[in-house]
Amino acid sequence: MIDTSSQPRVLIFDTTLRDGEQSPGATMTHEEKLEIAGLLDEMGVDIIEAGFPIASEGDFAAVSEIARNARNSTICGLARANYKDIDRCWEAVKHAKSPRIHTFIGTSPLHRAIPGLDMDQMAERIHDTVSHARNLCDNVQWSPMDATRTEADYLCRVVEIAIKAGATTINIPDTVGYTYPMESAQIIRMLLERVPGADSIVFATHCHNDLGMATANALAAVEAGARQIECTINGLGERAGNTALEEVVMALRVRNDILPFRTGIDATRIMHLSRRVSTVSGFVVQPNKAIVGKNAFVHESGIHQDGVLKNAETFEIMKPEHIGLTVKNIAMGKHSGRAALRAKMKEMGYDLAENQLNDAFVRFKALADRKKEVYDDDLVALMKDQETSATHDTLQVKRLRVVCGTEGPREAELTLSIDGVDHTTDATGDGPVDAAFNAVDMLWPHRAELQLYQVHAVTEGTDAQATVSVRIAEDGRIATGSSADTDTVVASVKAYVNALNRLIERRKKSAPGDDVKSVRYSDA
Amino acid sequence: MIDTSSQPRVLIFDTTLRDGEQSPGATMTHEEKLEIAGLLDEMGVDIIEAGFPIASEGDFAAVSEIARNARNSTICGLARANYKDIDRCWEAVKHAKSPRIHTFIGTSPLHRAIPGLDMDQMAERIHDTVSHARNLCDNVQWSPMDATRTEADYLCRVVEIAIKAGATTINIPDTVGYTYPMESAQIIRMLLERVPGADSIVFATHCHNDLGMATANALAAVEAGARQIECTINGLGERAGNTALEEVVMALRVRNDILPFRTGIDATRIMHLSRRVSTVSGFVVQPNKAIVGKNAFVHESGIHQDGVLKNAETFEIMKPEHIGLTVKNIAMGKHSGRAALRAKMKEMGYDLAENQLNDAFVRFKALADRKKEVYDDDLVALMKDQETSATHDTLQVKRLRVVCGTEGPREAELTLSIDGVDHTTDATGDGPVDAAFNAVDMLWPHRAELQLYQVHAVTEGTDAQATVSVRIAEDGRIATGSSADTDTVVASVKAYVNALNRLIERRKKSAPGDDVKSVRYSDA
Repeated sequence: MIDTSSQPRVLIFDTTLRDGEQSPGATMTHEEKLEIAGLLDEMGVDIIEAGFPIASEGDFAAVSEIARNARNSTICGLARANYKDIDRCWEAVKHAKSPRIHTFIGTSPLHRAIPGLDMDQMAERIHDTVSHARNLCDNVQWSPMDATRTEADYLCRVVEIAIKAGATTINIPDTVGYTYPMESAQIIRMLLERVPGADSIVFATHCHNDLGMATANALAAVEAGARQIECTINGLGERAGNTALEEVVMALRVRNDILPFRTGIDATRIMHLSRRVSTVSGFVVQPNKAIVGKNAFVHESGIHQDGVLKNAETFEIMKPEHIGLTVKNIAMGKHSGRAALRAKMKEMGYDLAENQLNDAFVRFKALADRKKEVYDDDLVALMKDQETSATHDTLQVKRLRVVCGTEGPREAELTLSIDGVDHTTDATGDGPVDAAFNAVDMLWPHRAELQLYQVHAVTEGTDAQATVSVRIAEDGRIATGSSADTDTVVASVKAYVNALNRLIERRKKSAPGDDVKSVRYSDA
Repeated sequence: MIDTSSQPRVLIFDTTLRDGEQSPGATMTHEEKLEIAGLLDEMGVDIIEAGFPIASEGDFAAVSEIARNARNSTICGLARANYKDIDRCWEAVKHAKSPRIHTFIGTSPLHRAIPGLDMDQMAERIHDTVSHARNLCDNVQWSPMDATRTEADYLCRVVEIAIKAGATTINIPDTVGYTYPMESAQIIRMLLERVPGADSIVFATHCHNDLGMATANALAAVEAGARQIECTINGLGERAGNTALEEVVMALRVRNDILPFRTGIDATRIMHLSRRVSTVSGFVVQPNKAIVGKNAFVHESGIHQDGVLKNAETFEIMKPEHIGLTVKNIAMGKHSGRAALRAKMKEMGYDLAENQLNDAFVRFKALADRKKEVYDDDLVALMKDQETSATHDTLQVKRLRVVCGTEGPREAELTLSIDGVDHTTDATGDGPVDAAFNAVDMLWPHRAELQLYQVHAVTEGTDAQATVSVRIAEDGRIATGSSADTDTVVASVKAYVNALNRLIERRKKSAPGDDVKSVRYSDA
C-alpha cells in the first residue's frame, strides 16, 4: 500500500441528488434523498449537491433537511444566475455546518443566445450574481455551463470575473459530454495560466459520458490542476450520465503510481451505495459496468467454472472487498439465527434496532422457508420491503388470488384494507399484473398514472425473489413503491399499493404541483 | 459534414463473438452467432473475431460457418501459442474470402509464470508459433496478452520477433483494464519508435473497461499511431467489458475536428445491433449507457415534459437518427395495415418474406388488440418470438392456467404437446413461474439446469409486454429461449419451452460437452 498522505487531495463533489436525480425517470422521494445523502456523508464525500432549491417545494425541503442532518459533508444547492434563485438556495443550505451556493450560467454561444445576453451583458450578470451569492455565503461555486464549447478568451474572461466577485470554486462543466481527455486538461491548464487569481481558488471538473469518456476527462483535468471532481453514484445523470464516483475513486487508487492524488472516500461503501441508488432511482446497473457491475469481478462471475484456477492477480487489479463486495455471497440459510442475521445486516450497512431486527428476522425465516439459500441481495430486498410497508398505511393488501395463462382474460380477486376496513373485488386484465392493478384501482379509485413498472429477479434460480419497482404520478406528485416476493404478482401489487400509500402521504403534506420541475436551466 | 475521405482509416475489429461471448453469462447459440456476424458484416466491420475454434466443437462450427458466409469482413479466429490451436483455427477460418489467424501469449511477468517460460524461451515460442501461423495464412495477428503490464524492453523485443516471424497486425491488449490514456498512447508511440519494421504492420489497441476508460484508452492509442480498434457491441466482455464499438465510432465522428480519422462503419445500424446483442446475450444496457442507453438522447427521455422546448443543439452533440434510432418511437396501432407493417419492419432491419410477413401480421394484430400502442421494441420482441417458436418443435405449450397470490402454494395446470401428443398435469411452486416450470419438468423430465431467468418489460405502461429470457444447461450444452407476451407467466413458460426445444436440437446435433469451454487462455 502506498502512503498517499502527502499527495494532493482531490475533493469529491457528489451530484447524484441533483444532476443524477434530474435524469428523466430517476426521480427520488424525499425520504430516499435523505437516506442517500446520509450514506454519501458517511462515505466521506466532501461536497453533496443536494438539489436545486428553487425548482420545487420538494427540492427546497430536501436540501434544507439534508443541510440540517449533514455531519461532515459540505451541503451545496444549485441556483441559476439571478438573485431569487440564489436567495432561495441560501435559505435551504444555510442550515448546514458547511453550506455552499453553486450558481451557473451557460457561456457558450448557443447558451448565451437563450437569455439573449451579449458577452458584456453576461459578464455583468456573472459579476452581480456571484457577488450576491458571496455576500450570503463564504463558500461559492460558479460554473460556466457548456464551458467546453465556450470561446477560450471569453471563458478566461468570465472565470476571472467570477473569481474577483468572490467565487471560491470554479467548475468547468462539459455539459454535453463532448470533450476529450487532452482537451479537458488543456482547458484547466489554460485557466490556471491565464486567469489572475486562479491559484487562489479550486478548479472543479464536471463531465458527462455521452461519448463514454467522462472518467478519463475528469482525471485528465485533475492531472492538469483541477482539485474537485463532480460525479454521481453509478454515473447516474441526464442522457448518458455523469462521471461515475466509483470509477474515479478506484482509478485514483489502482493507478496511484501515475495518478498520485488522494480522496477522502471510504471505498468499501461503494457497493452498498451503488445498490441503494440503483434501487431508489430504478436505474439498473448493467452487468458489465465498471467497478459496480455484477460481472466486474472475475471471481463473482464464474471463471472458476471454466476449470482453471489462476493466480487472482493475473486478471484482477482490485479486490472485491475494496469496494465492499462480500467475497462469499452465499449468506444465510433457514438454520441461521438472530445473531447471525444481525451480524450479517451490520456487515451490509444496516444497523438495526431491536424491533427492526425482530421484524426482519420473521421475514427472513419466511423467506428461508421458501428459498434454499438467502443471498445478500435477498436481504437488501427484504430490508427495502420492510422500510416501505409501515403498519399505519391507509391501504394494505390482505389477500390476492390471480388466475392467468393462455386462456384469457386474466382474473384477479383482491381484498384490500382501506383505513382498516376490508373491501373485496374481482377484475380482469391483459396479464396477471394488469388484472391485479385494475382490482386495486376499482377498490381505491385515483387519478395517478403509472409511469414505471420494473421487475428485477433479485437472485437467480427457479426460486428467485422478484423485486418490483413502481412509480406513479398524480398532478405532478410522484411516488414510488417497491416490494420483493417469490411470487412476482404479489410483489407487483404490494409495490403498487406502497406507491399509493406514499402518494396519500404526499397529498396530506403538500400542495399539488410541488414536485413538478417547472423551472429548468434554460430560463436562467 | 466534414469530408473525411483523405483521413487515415482506422480498422474496426469486432470481438463481440469472442471476447464478448466469453463473458460469463453471455453465451450465445450457434444461430445467434451467425445472425450477429451477418449484422456486423453488413455494418462494415473490417474484421470479425468469430470465436476461439479449439475451445469447443461449437466454437469451431460457428467460426467455420461465419467464415463461409462472410461477404466483406475479414474473419478471424483466436489461437493460443501452440501449433494445435493454430492449425485448428486455420481449419475454421480458411473458408473465408479473407481469413485471419490471431495468436497470442501472455508476456507480463505474472502471465509468463503460468506456462513457466523464461524470457528467452517465450521469445522462441513466439517466433515459432507466429511463423507457423504465417505459413498457413498471410494475414496473422499477434497479441502480447497483458501488454500494459509487460516490461517495456521485453515488449519491444517480442513485438520485433513477431513482426520478423510474419505478423501483419500487432495488437496491444490492456487485458486487465488497467491503463490510462496517456500510457496507452505512450506504449504505441514507443513501439513505433523502437521496433524495427513497426512501420510495415498495423498496430491494434484492445482495451478493457475495468476503470471506465476503455474508450479513451483506445482513442489515445489511435492518436499515437494505432490503426485498428478492437471492440464489442454494448461493450460486452469479461468483467467490465471491452471498448464499446458504438462509443469509439461515434466519438470519431462527433470529435472528428480533433480526432481526424475515419472508419468504414455504417453508424445507422448501431441501435439495431445493440438491441440484438442485448437480447441474445441477456445483458441489459443500462439507461445511462453512452450512445445506446435508453436515456442517451435527451428528446427520448422526456425533457419536453419539463415544459421547456430548446434548440436541440444546446444539449445534443449527435442526432438519434445517426445511430439508427427512430425519432418517433410510436409505431403502429390496431388500424395499421400489412403494408405499413412491412415498411416499418424494413426500416427496423427485418426484410420479411411473404410467409414471414403473414405470420408477423397475425401476431401484430393480436398484440394490437391487447395493447393500445405498439412500439418498435414490441415489434422487435414479436419478431424474436416468431424466430424462436418453430412449428416443428418437439414441445409446444397448448394451454396454461396458473393460480397465484398471497394464499400459497401457487398452482399451475399445463397442457404440453410432446411430439404431437397432448399431456396435462398440475404442479405447485413458490411463485407462478416456479409452479409452471415445475409442470413442464413433470411432463418432460430432463436434467437441464436453469442458469438464467430474466424479465424485461419491453415497453412501459400497465399493458406492457414482458419479454422473458431463459438459459439452461445440460452436460455442458447450453440453450436459450425467449418469448414475449402481455402475460408474464405465459411468456416465461414459452421461453422455457423454447430453450428446451433448442436443447433437444442440440442433443441431436452434437456430443455432450461440446459447448464446454474446457480450454482457456492460461493453459497456453
